[in-house]
Amino acid sequence: MSYDSSNIFGKILRGEIPAHKVYEDDTALVMMDIFPQSRGHTLVIPKMPSRNLLDADPQVLSAVMPIMQRVAQALKRATGADGIRLAQFNEAAAGQTVFHLHFHLIPAYDGVPLAAHAGGKADDAELGALAKAIAAAL
Amino acid sequence: MSYDSSNIFGKILRGEIPAHKVYEDDTALVMMDIFPQSRGHTLVIPKMPSRNLLDADPQVLSAVMPIMQRVAQALKRATGADGIRLAQFNEAAAGQTVFHLHFHLIPAYDGVPLAAHAGGKADDAELGALAKAIAAAL
Repeated sequence: MSYDSSNIFGKILRGEIPAHKVYEDDTALVMMDIFPQSRGHTLVIPKMPSRNLLDADPQVLSAVMPIMQRVAQALKRATGADGIRLAQFNEAAAGQTVFHLHFHLIPAYDGVPLAAHAGGKADDAELGALAKAIAAAL
Repeated sequence: MSYDSSNIFGKILRGEIPAHKVYEDDTALVMMDIFPQSRGHTLVIPKMPSRNLLDADPQVLSAVMPIMQRVAQALKRATGADGIRLAQFNEAAAGQTVFHLHFHLIPAYDGVPLAAHAGGKADDAELGALAKAIAAAL
């Protein structure tokens, strides 16, 4: 399995298509998932091309984790979530659909089953407002 | 929310109760989950006490990621899985039940729905054999 740069996150990283960005540095881009599993579903995407965790540069993995923590903390503050799920899928059998390494940070809210949240594409204005609120909480 | 050392992973790290260990170094303990969501469900547990991702030492998070990658690769080789899911839950609302930071590595097999796998406690002999097979593939 090798990396194919035509995937949608590759296009976003190259600026070919837009995204609701929360944060960006040399290591990673953080943005809203447009098909959120709950309000505030955020993606942390290392910039260095890799298909998933299995073929990633270990140094990139080390560098991305403190960013992941800061985003998880900001996400919890900004959304008022009661918990945060971190998920990352490797290969189609595990649920991977975009083959550029990415980590999901999915807010959980007391009394709201996560699975029931899976809906369609989120409203652009709402995603933009969430991206700003999370960025402000970083 | 603060860390309570009486949790089961704290007890395992202190050697007070046994576990099916796959790997251990100064940073982390890797062991089989005794309530596996699929065959080969493995836990990566940083040794430094923290409740979850939100209060962990960022340096520990960076150090654990290359270990996580190596274990994921070995797990895929040892089990013949078609994919690997990484999951980590923060607070009860997100599904956290043991309040010492831990990461789940859950093998996925083509044609086998993950959710259907959730069963009871696994057989000790089988877990022991899996731990040895994954360790050998590291």
